[in-house]
Amino acid sequence: MTVTSTARSFRTIADGSVTSARGFRAGALAAGIKASGKPDLGIWTADCECVAAGTFTPNKFPAAPVILSRARLAASDSRAQAVVFNAGNANACNGQQGLADAQEMSRLTADQLGISPDLVMVASTGIIGVPMPMDRIRQGIPRLVLRPDAGHDAARAIMTTDTKPKECAVALEIGGREVRIGAMTKGVGMIHPNMATMLAFIGTDANLDKAFARTTLKRVVDRTFNMITVDGDTSTNDSCFLLANGLSGAPTLEASSADAERFAEALEAVCTDLARQMAADGEGASKLLEVNVTGAASDADARAAARAVVGSSLVKAALHGEDPNWGRVFAAVGNSTAQVDASRAALWIGSVQVARDGIGTGVAKDAARAQMRGATVQVRVDLGLGDSSARAWGCDLTEAYVVENSAYST
Amino acid sequence: MTVTSTARSFRTIADGSVTSARGFRAGALAAGIKASGKPDLGIWTADCECVAAGTFTPNKFPAAPVILSRARLAASDSRAQAVVFNAGNANACNGQQGLADAQEMSRLTADQLGISPDLVMVASTGIIGVPMPMDRIRQGIPRLVLRPDAGHDAARAIMTTDTKPKECAVALEIGGREVRIGAMTKGVGMIHPNMATMLAFIGTDANLDKAFARTTLKRVVDRTFNMITVDGDTSTNDSCFLLANGLSGAPTLEASSADAERFAEALEAVCTDLARQMAADGEGASKLLEVNVTGAASDADARAAARAVVGSSLVKAALHGEDPNWGRVFAAVGNSTAQVDASRAALWIGSVQVARDGIGTGVAKDAARAQMRGATVQVRVDLGLGDSSARAWGCDLTEAYVVENSAYST
Repeated sequence: MTVTSTARSFRTIADGSVTSARGFRAGALAAGIKASGKPDLGIWTADCECVAAGTFTPNKFPAAPVILSRARLAASDSRAQAVVFNAGNANACNGQQGLADAQEMSRLTADQLGISPDLVMVASTGIIGVPMPMDRIRQGIPRLVLRPDAGHDAARAIMTTDTKPKECAVALEIGGREVRIGAMTKGVGMIHPNMATMLAFIGTDANLDKAFARTTLKRVVDRTFNMITVDGDTSTNDSCFLLANGLSGAPTLEASSADAERFAEALEAVCTDLARQMAADGEGASKLLEVNVTGAASDADARAAARAVVGSSLVKAALHGEDPNWGRVFAAVGNSTAQVDASRAALWIGSVQVARDGIGTGVAKDAARAQMRGATVQVRVDLGLGDSSARAWGCDLTEAYVVENSAYST
Repeated sequence: MTVTSTARSFRTIADGSVTSARGFRAGALAAGIKASGKPDLGIWTADCECVAAGTFTPNKFPAAPVILSRARLAASDSRAQAVVFNAGNANACNGQQGLADAQEMSRLTADQLGISPDLVMVASTGIIGVPMPMDRIRQGIPRLVLRPDAGHDAARAIMTTDTKPKECAVALEIGGREVRIGAMTKGVGMIHPNMATMLAFIGTDANLDKAFARTTLKRVVDRTFNMITVDGDTSTNDSCFLLANGLSGAPTLEASSADAERFAEALEAVCTDLARQMAADGEGASKLLEVNVTGAASDADARAAARAVVGSSLVKAALHGEDPNWGRVFAAVGNSTAQVDASRAALWIGSVQVARDGIGTGVAKDAARAQMRGATVQVRVDLGLGDSSARAWGCDLTEAYVVENSAYST
């Protein structure tokens, strides 16, 4: 999707959450799955059956909740109503017992909500290869109290190494009715293009045609969550859920209408905002890196080049040191699958052009370094070959990342 | 190449170097390219014209020396005699001036040696995008004194962030004559599969058929230098040169002979030894990681899976913390292009099996952790799908890597 409108047709909802749209409730509590005793279990549900779409990790060791949720969405013809989620345990690499546990989590949730288990998705995040502490889940789920104002609680309960919750909501008008989109995500390690979200939940009161919901979610995820990287590792558990309950009363959105485009634009804005929040809160990160690649020969080339730059350990380390070592950016682009003519590439750090026609402009290092001081650093690479562009987000590589990941399971 | 002989038919030469084979000389000095004042310029040459082969970086921003050397090897029909090399400046992203500088380096070297510039290769390593300090090169090359016993000096002059020189030499008998292979490499950042060496120089006094030299070097590099990773970044300058001067007087080796196989086996042993030295000396590394993948459905799958594990930031960080968080190994394999059946995969850390049929064996964490204490940690993944296997080498991700790379150019 290309955002062509110059004026945005949506507005941001202050203090938005995953329950900002009408007819969504959430609940969360500390069930004792996390050793820290922090909130780690929750349910997010709509008040009625929804049109649903999901995108899931391509990892070949998919966690049990991914296997279950993917199968349910396919079997239910894109209908769902609730997601039960936990942090502290990924329920991955747990074999048949893991699948049985995920199924039990969905049954317990269905009982609690009085709906069919077929309408319940499951999302887990945390350590891999440790059996789910089902006694705590069994005790926890019946104690969950679901409220429309508990979105923020839910956002806290899916956090693992996140330092802050990640939420966003917007509103727009469709057919004279206000339609809302509210969402939450968690990061922040094992994040890499190809369903990079770890976990994302998006609820809207729009009426969505199911095919439109599926294709739009995939398109938006490809341009947002799949364009961020923290450490190059794609998790076994990445899942993104979209539930549309239709309670706004707005007319149903199908592909190829102006209203549908406006909805997709608003959805992309929500996911872009969350993607930036996730990259900025990458494990140990102190800076957000936003890379724009322009002038690529194809969209695929632009995406590959942008992701290569945000994924380069050497670029990330240089960013941490506010070191305008721009050769590392070209080296990363040159390692990607993108078509490159070294004599045509240009490079900017912030507003300072550091390379032109593949060679340095001779700009003073201090001028380039000054562009790297802030919490967000912009890099633009123009390949000089065509009209395609792409944007990707990452973060710096810090000592804190290493410290955090050297002893995660212990 | 599969090493099928149970007894090795070669012997290691103690204190070996790139001049261990007959008829090779080297020289190095501090020309002032490195700010540290350490040795940074040298020549490695044979006493006569050689059969030569080279492998080079696939990076699309190849440095000027790579462009020049690759073109010369193609034009000379696999003949070369010398390599001029420097550290401290990569001569990459320097445009036409960079190419002119690399050509001048080869001319100065040819003058010094009294040979044609067409027989001189160039290899540079260091920072990207900074013009070569040609005044220092012009002053330095004529001062180089070339001696058969200066191999160790050469190995020091190609170091950048390496903490120690990397050298290896072996001898074997071919047709009643002793044949030697001597080599040196440098690492140790920007190292990743696909010509991972940064710089490698291999000299032998064997007589090699030129086609055999090319195919054997490529095969061995694919199984050794291309199977190590330090940080996932492939440099603009990676180059590997093989010079065979024939001065042993041994018969010419061509493909498909038993002697040729034995030579290839010895060459692979040299390159494996150097690959391990490079991985162990990865920037900031404190541990060498050796990953064996067995039971893969194809050789390509085995290679992809093994490289994914040594390339995973989360695996590398866990290794640093001696944390047997084996789920990260499966997650890395699951992100590779390798065919995987999650229910068949098995995993060992050292001699302790931590997973079977895709799930944990329940072995005590301390038992697994004990296998991670040493300077070398072995991990084996059996995919349970076929007969193919591969080996890859990497290192842990440490705070020191971040510190080292946060301010390299400054």
